[in-house]
This record gives sequence, structure tokens and C-alpha cells, in this order.
Amino acid sequence: MCLRVGRVGGMSSSPEHRLPHIVVVGAGFAGLSFVKGIPAEAARITIIDRQNHHLFQPLLYQVATAGLSAVDIAQPVRAIFGARPNFSVLMSEVTGFDLADRRVRHAHGELAYDYLVVAAGGVTSYFGHPEWEQFAPGLKSLDDALRIRRQILSSFERAETEPDAAKCEAAMTIVIIGGGPTGVELAGSFAELTRRVLNRDFDHIDPSKARVLLIEGSPRVLAAFPAELSASAQRQLEKLGVEVRTGVHVEAVRQGELVAGGQTIRADNIFWGAGVSAAPVARQLGVETDRAGRVKVLPDLSIPGHPEVFALGDMASLVDAKGVTVPGVAQGAMQMGAHAAKLIRRELRGEKLAPSGREAFAYHDKGSMATIGRSAAVADIKGLKLSGYPAWIAWLTVHLLFLVGFRSKISVLMQWIYSYLTYKRGARIITGVSGEKSAGSA
Amino acid sequence: MCLRVGRVGGMSSSPEHRLPHIVVVGAGFAGLSFVKGIPAEAARITIIDRQNHHLFQPLLYQVATAGLSAVDIAQPVRAIFGARPNFSVLMSEVTGFDLADRRVRHAHGELAYDYLVVAAGGVTSYFGHPEWEQFAPGLKSLDDALRIRRQILSSFERAETEPDAAKCEAAMTIVIIGGGPTGVELAGSFAELTRRVLNRDFDHIDPSKARVLLIEGSPRVLAAFPAELSASAQRQLEKLGVEVRTGVHVEAVRQGELVAGGQTIRADNIFWGAGVSAAPVARQLGVETDRAGRVKVLPDLSIPGHPEVFALGDMASLVDAKGVTVPGVAQGAMQMGAHAAKLIRRELRGEKLAPSGREAFAYHDKGSMATIGRSAAVADIKGLKLSGYPAWIAWLTVHLLFLVGFRSKISVLMQWIYSYLTYKRGARIITGVSGEKSAGSA
Repeated sequence: MCLRVGRVGGMSSSPEHRLPHIVVVGAGFAGLSFVKGIPAEAARITIIDRQNHHLFQPLLYQVATAGLSAVDIAQPVRAIFGARPNFSVLMSEVTGFDLADRRVRHAHGELAYDYLVVAAGGVTSYFGHPEWEQFAPGLKSLDDALRIRRQILSSFERAETEPDAAKCEAAMTIVIIGGGPTGVELAGSFAELTRRVLNRDFDHIDPSKARVLLIEGSPRVLAAFPAELSASAQRQLEKLGVEVRTGVHVEAVRQGELVAGGQTIRADNIFWGAGVSAAPVARQLGVETDRAGRVKVLPDLSIPGHPEVFALGDMASLVDAKGVTVPGVAQGAMQMGAHAAKLIRRELRGEKLAPSGREAFAYHDKGSMATIGRSAAVADIKGLKLSGYPAWIAWLTVHLLFLVGFRSKISVLMQWIYSYLTYKRGARIITGVSGEKSAGSA
Repeated sequence: MCLRVGRVGGMSSSPEHRLPHIVVVGAGFAGLSFVKGIPAEAARITIIDRQNHHLFQPLLYQVATAGLSAVDIAQPVRAIFGARPNFSVLMSEVTGFDLADRRVRHAHGELAYDYLVVAAGGVTSYFGHPEWEQFAPGLKSLDDALRIRRQILSSFERAETEPDAAKCEAAMTIVIIGGGPTGVELAGSFAELTRRVLNRDFDHIDPSKARVLLIEGSPRVLAAFPAELSASAQRQLEKLGVEVRTGVHVEAVRQGELVAGGQTIRADNIFWGAGVSAAPVARQLGVETDRAGRVKVLPDLSIPGHPEVFALGDMASLVDAKGVTVPGVAQGAMQMGAHAAKLIRRELRGEKLAPSGREAFAYHDKGSMATIGRSAAVADIKGLKLSGYPAWIAWLTVHLLFLVGFRSKISVLMQWIYSYLTYKRGARIITGVSGEKSAGSA
């Protein structure tokens, strides 16, 4: 059962091992888009990721708010590329690079490469306050989303039996820090969860009166959008019952409370949607990084001094050929993956160019959208500004089209139709409460 | 937001509080079936459970083997009875009973009752070897199933990078202890997972050669079935590649190995499907229990000395009116729930009888089935013995019909069709690996 032939990075001399070897770190949007851009017969590819799945991050907030189940937005990497030849997946954690020797070190060994693509994505950033993480978890992985779902559902169960009014109200207060797309989507979705889903199911609390607060330091939510869409998003949030506080800075986050704008707010549910920085592995490349830990890549997306190494997606900091700062969104990551693949594809065909002679990356902004709730969203598509129902339909369509995996598409579509028709959410299951013990009473 | 009116068990004098109060411990098959048997206007009901969901246990093995996602087989208790009046759900853990004073103590307070229904189900039993649990987890809750799924998928990922042949083989060895329905279903499903799903996706191991061992102490698997169906089940398992060892007793279970029939087997994946005993809360009733910790109930399912207290399902030990030992299966639990509801319904209408004068419970065996894999199952329906494809179709139909919740039915049906057509499984997602940290490299 344990064949040791075809060993990745080994010394085997079977024909496919004479192909150049590309190591891709990270199975996110950039990594997958890169692999799709390399013909299977042109190179051996090993993709290495800490998780066994590709995660469709734009819908992660729906797992956190019990609208979708974890499995709907994740695809095993092995299954995505199952039939592809000259392709390996390694579930392991990268621990460092030896760029001179062209090797990647990971938890279970090391890999030699001819080309290296580093696209390990981002992590939640607490702006110099890592101690806040335990009190205000962020939303970057499936485990984060399941933890948030568990916390919020358990919190309402606790409120139902809590005799102390102040404690009960803290259990029913949800604060989201950060008014970017993640924060706006979480706030809108929590407001709907409390007002339209949980509201019918409790006896001693009224979930429709639960407090949902969105706190943003800058003067408006969705700061990357046109001002009129920010205003529209705020109106739509407020209509759902979200208290939006802009221009308010968070001063402290502690167990069960936060201090913002000089005021102390008691809340058992504080979530962080404010900042993203590059995953720590970016620093291991040993080249200059920006404030968010992202690698300052050359215009072709390679790193200085190493034309065979590319950093992509949330790992990369770049002002592109048109003077645009490439935003840390899925379409940016996918375009970067495709660009790096195009350059390597050309080299594999024999066209060798210095990085300065290579085609520079240019970002094509296809538009931005953020959803707020049922029939509520904003979208900015090449200058066309949409709000409310049309923006929501555009959002649904784009997200269904880009969701990886036919099965997931059908499943997500069905759950959305179900929720739309019934005002219910299917994933209101608390798992992981009992820890490692299954025994117990009821 | 925190109303304290209508407080369960409190002293409020609103009209519905003059209704008799029934406390139901456990939201399993017995508890739900009981609640459905009590007219909503006849009594106030409080259902108390450690979890927030009803679990469709017969499909739990499919979550453990990545065929279904957790959400498909669990329904929030609040949602099941959402619109029912005079009904409360309490997510809490029962800590004891005061039968004289008619009170249930739980983690967050206590509840006064007029009738008490104790139906908290079973836990995995290790026959006097609780120390084996850590090395051979059982399958009773969603958390158990998700842990098994995580363990098995991670184990194959580890095998893929393991240079040591013996360690790699241990990672690819799966042992199931116990040849009852749970053990047979797990073994068959693991064999299919390795041989027909994972087999295409790895480079350095051949999952189709993974060893799947089923160990049973008695002379045949499915001992509760007719002998010819046991033989058929064993043949069907062996055809899938499962090594079946009957008449073999487990002597020791340790980290990564077990000793059975004098032989030591190295295996990183050992699962326990051998025994069930009543959840510990049964003992708190202070009445006589059997070897498996189940309460010895009177023929009407009430407990000796307390006609207002019933123990049902896996909590109850009973030889029924026809001399049949009621088996610990879903249909037994449902029938018990319906029976207790009928007796209480009559009393609520004014018909008071001593327990000895009440109608005795009689078990109606509608048949037993166990599934082995694709087109492989056995069924014994009132003497009609089916094997293979017809048994499998019967199994599919019955399980879809009884699965609680319209949405779950559709979702499960779709995933089964998908798996049948593609030989893929949708829930191959490893969650919970990274523990409480979301930060990291790839």
C-alpha cells in the first residue's frame, strides 16, 4: 500500500522527473489559478498547504452565520486536480526557504524546485495588539468560521437561561470591528440571523432585539467603494437594525467588553474584521516587505534577485503597470496566478527573459461588491453603481459562478433558495462544544 | 431584549403556567416522538439537551466517512418545534433529580415538573476498559464523527509523506472493533472510501490497498440478524476488501496498536463500535439498572415508585408484554416515546390509573437493516430476508423517509445521487486541525 516510487523531490529518474518542478505554496485563489495556467505535460507541480482544502473565502461569513455548512465552500485540493498528471498535493506546513539551493523546508521534509510560487494568503491582523485576538477572533479559515458559529449560537442559548439582565444583554450583544466588506457582511448577516431566523425560537429572550454594532475607524464603511455606495450600505445596514459607528477607534478589547470612542461596551460576541496581513511565511523569503508583511515584488511578480520565485495574492505588495495598488481580493489573486503561469509557461517553451524584460502585471478591476443581507447589497462594476436588489442579484450570480466545484454550486444554490423562501438557516448546529468527550447526560 | 416573563419552572401565574409541566431530558428519537404525541394545548413541555440539535444517529457513520456533512443529519431542536406553543428548549446538562420534590437539577438552575421523561440516550461502552477510549474513539455524537473524519483523512495525508514503510502502513490501517450494525457500516464505508474515492488522489501511496479490519468477539457479524444474513453481510464486506475476523477478542488497545486474538496489529486508526451503555444520567434516577446502566422500567415504561417518571430509549431496560427484549434502536425509542405520550395524554384528560393498571408497552419490530456499501446491504423485514441491491434500496428509502427535516432529506438525497454517479464524496474536508490558531503559513 505504501509505494515509494515517484517520490516528490526525490532522486528518482523516471521520465516525468526530468520535467521542471514547480512548487506552489498555498491552495488559495492565486495558487489554483496558477496551476490551471500551466499545461500538465509542461512541468511537475507540487502544491503544499496546511489544509487539505481550497476555501472559497468570500462566502466564509455565511458559514460563520449558519447560512452554509463548512463543506459547501471547501473543496479538497486533491479532488480539484484529481486526474491531472505530474501533480502532487502535500498537506504540510512550510517552515522556511533555501533560495540559493532552491529548496522549500516543510514540517515533513523538504522539496527541491525549479520554480517557486508563494501564495499562502493572509492572516487577521490586530494592528500591534495580538493580545486582542483571544477576545475578538477574526475570520480567515473554516475553523474560525465554525468557532464563530458555535460562539454565537451558544451565546443565545446561554442568554435564554441567564437570570441576570446585564449578563443576558451582554450575551445578546454582537460587535464587529472593521467596516470593510467582511465586517459589513458579518454585521448584516448577524442582524438577519437574530431578527429573522432566531427570533421565533426562544421563550425568555427576544433575539430580534439583539444588539448588532459595527465599528469602523475611518469616516465611512466600505472605504474602498465610491462614497454614495458607502452611504447606501450604511442605510441598508441600519434598516436591518445594525448600529453603525464610523470614525470610532477601538482602544481596548478584553474578555466580554471593548472600549471604543471612550465608551465601554459589554458584549460576549466581539469579532474582528478590521485588518489582514500576509501570512508569516512571507517574511521567510528574506526580501523587503511592507507594513502588512507583504513581499515587495517586482512588476513581473517575481522577488528581487530570484526570477524563479514569485509571490502572489495577499503575499504580494505591488503598484501595477497602470499605477494601481493591487487590492487583496480574490480577483487580484486569480489574475496574479494567471500572470505568473503565463511567464513560466513561456520560459518552459524556451523564452528566457530577465525579470525586467518580462511582461509586467496589470490589474483589471472587474468591479467590487459587498452583500448586506436579503435583497441588500452594493456593487461598483466599472463605474456602474448598484444598490439593493439589483446589486444583490449581481452578487449572488458572481459568487455562484466562481464557487469551485459543481456539487458546491448546486448545494449552495439550493440552500440560498431554501433560506430565501423559508427565512430559515440550515447550518444552526453547534459542534465542538463538548470538546474531546462524547459521554455525558442529555 | 431579555424578557424574563414566561420563565420556565418559575412562579409566574400567566394562564399557560396553570398547565401541567412536562420535562423531557434528551432530544433524541424517544424525546421527539414523545413531544409529538402530546397535544400542544394539553401541557407545557420543556425539552433539555446538552446539544442544540437532534441527531439522526443512523447516518452518523456517513459523516465519519466523509459522505455527508454534519449539518445534513442534525436539526436544531428549536427549529423542529419552532411554532409550537407552550414549548421551551433548554441547552444545558442535567446534573441530578429530586424525585420526591419533582425537580430536575441542571447546569444553569432547576426545573419543577409534573411529569418527567428521561431519554438521554446511550454512550459508547468499553466493557470495563475506559482507558481504551482515547485510542479507539466511539461514534455517538457529531463531534465524534467529525473527529473520526479528521483523523482518517489526516492519516492518509501523513502516509503520503511518511518515508518509513512500517509507519506508513500503520497510517493506512483501519481497525473497527465490533461487528454490529455500526461496525459493519463503518467498515464497509471505510473500504469504499479508500478503494473508490481516495484511490485516485495520491501519488506515493495506494489507498486502494489500505487495510480495513473488522473484529467481532462473537462467531458472526450482525449477531441480531438471521444467520444467513450475517453470512451474506460478511461476504459483501469481504468483496469490498474488508478483512472480517469473528470470534476474536480484543485484549488490549494502546496508542497506534491493538492486541486481538493473541496478535498485535499496528494501526493508527482504531475505532470502537462494540458497546453502548445508558448515559450516566440514568443512574441519577436512583432506581435499579442493568449491566449496561439502563433503568429497569415497569411494563408501562415508568420507573418503580414514580408513575410520573418515564425512562425511554437507550435509558430503559425492558422485556415487553410479548416477552421480547426491546432493542436499543431508533424504532424502539420512537415507539417508547409514543407509548409514554399516550399514557400521559390519557391522564391529562382525567383518566388516572396506577402503573399496574396502565397499558403495557409492546414492541413492534418493523425489521432491521444494515448497509455495507454501494448496492450492498442486508435487511430482515418481518421474516423477508433481503441482501445486496434490494436491501440497499430498502435501506435508502427508509432512512430518507425518517430523516427529520425536509431540507435535510433533499440535501442527503442529492449527495447520495452525486456520490452514486461520480464515486466522489463531498465532505472530505479536514476541520479543527489547527486547533485554536488561525495564523500560519500555507
